[in-house]
Amino acid sequence: VVAASLGLTIDPRSPLPVYRQIADGIRQGLGEGRLQPGLRLPATRDLARALQVNRNTVVAAYEALGREGVVASHTGRGTFLVDPKEVPVPEPADPFAHAFARAVEGSKVASLLSVYRTAISGEGISFAGSFPAAELMPVEPFRRAMGAVLRERGAELLSYGATGGYAPLREAVAEGMRRRGSRVDADEILVTNGSQQALELVFRTFVDPGDPVLVEDLTYTGALSVLASLDARVVGVPGDEEGIRLDLLTRALERHRARVLYVQPTFHNPTARVMGEARRRELLALAARHGCIVVEDDWAGDLRFEGVEVPTLHALDGGSRVVYVSTFSKKLLPGLRVGWVAAPAPVLERLVALKQVADCGTSPLLQAALHRFLADGGLDDHLRRVRRTYRERRDAMLAGLARHLAGQAVWTRPEGGLFVWARLLHGLDATALFGEAAARGVLFSRGELFHAEGLARDCLRLTYGGVSPEQIEAGLAILGQLVGARERRPEVAAAEWDAVPIL
Amino acid sequence: VVAASLGLTIDPRSPLPVYRQIADGIRQGLGEGRLQPGLRLPATRDLARALQVNRNTVVAAYEALGREGVVASHTGRGTFLVDPKEVPVPEPADPFAHAFARAVEGSKVASLLSVYRTAISGEGISFAGSFPAAELMPVEPFRRAMGAVLRERGAELLSYGATGGYAPLREAVAEGMRRRGSRVDADEILVTNGSQQALELVFRTFVDPGDPVLVEDLTYTGALSVLASLDARVVGVPGDEEGIRLDLLTRALERHRARVLYVQPTFHNPTARVMGEARRRELLALAARHGCIVVEDDWAGDLRFEGVEVPTLHALDGGSRVVYVSTFSKKLLPGLRVGWVAAPAPVLERLVALKQVADCGTSPLLQAALHRFLADGGLDDHLRRVRRTYRERRDAMLAGLARHLAGQAVWTRPEGGLFVWARLLHGLDATALFGEAAARGVLFSRGELFHAEGLARDCLRLTYGGVSPEQIEAGLAILGQLVGARERRPEVAAAEWDAVPIL
Repeated sequence: VVAASLGLTIDPRSPLPVYRQIADGIRQGLGEGRLQPGLRLPATRDLARALQVNRNTVVAAYEALGREGVVASHTGRGTFLVDPKEVPVPEPADPFAHAFARAVEGSKVASLLSVYRTAISGEGISFAGSFPAAELMPVEPFRRAMGAVLRERGAELLSYGATGGYAPLREAVAEGMRRRGSRVDADEILVTNGSQQALELVFRTFVDPGDPVLVEDLTYTGALSVLASLDARVVGVPGDEEGIRLDLLTRALERHRARVLYVQPTFHNPTARVMGEARRRELLALAARHGCIVVEDDWAGDLRFEGVEVPTLHALDGGSRVVYVSTFSKKLLPGLRVGWVAAPAPVLERLVALKQVADCGTSPLLQAALHRFLADGGLDDHLRRVRRTYRERRDAMLAGLARHLAGQAVWTRPEGGLFVWARLLHGLDATALFGEAAARGVLFSRGELFHAEGLARDCLRLTYGGVSPEQIEAGLAILGQLVGARERRPEVAAAEWDAVPIL
Repeated sequence: VVAASLGLTIDPRSPLPVYRQIADGIRQGLGEGRLQPGLRLPATRDLARALQVNRNTVVAAYEALGREGVVASHTGRGTFLVDPKEVPVPEPADPFAHAFARAVEGSKVASLLSVYRTAISGEGISFAGSFPAAELMPVEPFRRAMGAVLRERGAELLSYGATGGYAPLREAVAEGMRRRGSRVDADEILVTNGSQQALELVFRTFVDPGDPVLVEDLTYTGALSVLASLDARVVGVPGDEEGIRLDLLTRALERHRARVLYVQPTFHNPTARVMGEARRRELLALAARHGCIVVEDDWAGDLRFEGVEVPTLHALDGGSRVVYVSTFSKKLLPGLRVGWVAAPAPVLERLVALKQVADCGTSPLLQAALHRFLADGGLDDHLRRVRRTYRERRDAMLAGLARHLAGQAVWTRPEGGLFVWARLLHGLDATALFGEAAARGVLFSRGELFHAEGLARDCLRLTYGGVSPEQIEAGLAILGQLVGARERRPEVAAAEWDAVPIL
């Protein structure tokens, strides 16, 4: 009787779930006028008995109708059919006007792309980007490794793989970290599409919109872009020649109660500076005292060509508080897009879940080819070659800077990595210089791109990694001319400075 | 005098920016007791003149000190040194306790990984996952294509590439879409790591936390996971045998004012249904009327083995309101992890910026090898083979279902794609069946995983794509036995049902 009064029948042959059939039947009755707005629906228990279905099925049907606006429930009175008003919406001219999410509309998100486009443009003499030397890439050994794995297990490697990464590669990565003092197992490694994705997944795992995140005030543009896309509150902490200053870090930890600190202790991007072991230990103790997680970005740890290696934060910490990020892009082959995260099990579990949502895992084929290349000893050979070359180029750059920019700028002397950080003297502005230099075919990276608040406009980053000594000399000669010309017109420069908010 | 009173000097040889030197000098004075808390700092104009620097440099120094808590500014009175209180923070036992972001803690984010792990486990007879047949993969032609591109331009392809994708592949993808009626150019294509990343980037571009997003109430688990990770408000709209119901979609558009609708019009995952052309046109008109963007997921459009092709929404719409997502994973090689988005220029620009932030671009090497394979005509050959095989397997599955589950379940009859959708009759629960079947070595996908609210527990998805006809017969025989055994114990089943909230 109850079901009949609603005109409901269940069709056992229908592929629609039963709850959906009930909901559809009620909506149809309303649409056809058999059921009137205002009608009180039977109690779920009564209707379930009448239809010979589980009561939860009827509850689900009523809830679905509620979500769809067909019924409204009033506590203690029951569930009623409603008559939804029509709300006409005018069609906008541009379907995508005002359609974009807030977080991706910020300029910081777009800036990484603009920086990258400059860096890969391949025109003129480029000190931009932090790219390794293309002519040193071990293309032929890698081709052999790729051919071998495709012949031996192509079908498997061209199928879906494990989300966390290709097991032998995870083991090789963990073994490499253990050789540098870390306590880490293969199942604490997540393989990612370069360290950019590693950072993205790590920050998404820890940062809610509006959360404070502490960074070195000069830091990697890609990390700043990720944090901007997450709508994080970025707090830049100044550093000195050894990296982030612990007195200021202490203050920032106290003021902002941040859960996450992002640092690059070795060959810091963009300054190339290295944090000493004592400060690393103090930093870890400080983070522990404040319950703060440390994200260590060690993108260039293998690229030391001078001086003594300093243990990673991950190694010093025993892997308990540090989430470690690195990549094969800078030390080996950027086009593979293979990086990784090392993190304790509860963190890694969430990172893997997010990696699944992000892209279902990095190509198993690329990972297997890389693993074969590593197993054949290709990386050690390659590192020996590139370290020698990078030292020569660093020397060429330091000599060129002394020749062409002495008295106009000061700069760092890196013991590894791919670039030198310089500051222009006499109030010169690297952003203005950038346009002039680009017009003469010389590119570099503007300092402001690396600053948490867009400051450091008097600074620039000069990459020597991908440029020959001859190009370094030629490019620095042009920069020296441009800087010299600027200085020789102090009155014009001063007028420009007053007009441009430089800091 | 002014500068001297603060004890400030600018070191022109320091690599620190000048504003930073000023800020550091003031902080140091406070730390050493030379400057007292409460001291009013000089006006920026006066200090700039005294130090012979730009006034903006001093402003930047004061602002930096403000952010660091060293000074406080009071409008109309000036800037004062403050004495920050120390706020000790106790160290928690587990550094990662309560450290995770809200959005990634939801079960929906983890559920995709759990589904995927089941699907790739490769044990027993698997109707789970929507995977193509591994034994049909064109491994050898792909290996030749990979070898050729590595020989011809290995160094270029192992370097960083364009963020939007390898230009020849973008052109090939656009050309393929044009052959199916779309108006689209290569620069409206973004190459992604499979369609999973395509969906992630698209939803991140349009969805802020809390935004409503309309989906088919049964839909792709991976899309639900992305939306959960973005903290979107997912509104499931029921469908019928032809897909999403437009009367309910109208109501949902009116009630929720959603900007984004996500649909799979062709071989919908999980039901395999196809939306007819008339409904597609009405859906587009409805979306236009409400200013709603349509995200069309066409992961299986090439996998039709029967019946007549229906134009994509993108083709019908002229590419003006539809953001189109597809992939080479299902039709070709999942292990490449190559998919794409097609979108109008203003959308694509933002997608590319976000792709840069996400991972700096998909491996150029994989893209070039795929492009070479396509240019050699490999895809057409492959599609001819797999379509024939999938039709045979579909037939085997329909026959097996009729043999073993007639009267126990109803199911769809797909004209393409990789799976059949079935609903168990007599109140049987697919989630309970899943455990029993797994214990007998037979896997399938539970219906609830595809439902926006976790309903459809009476349903299951059975993939025939990667299983031989013999395995299909054997697996369905086991499912038939298990379902039959359940039905023969109605009183036990009823008791179980009362205990378990099934909907």
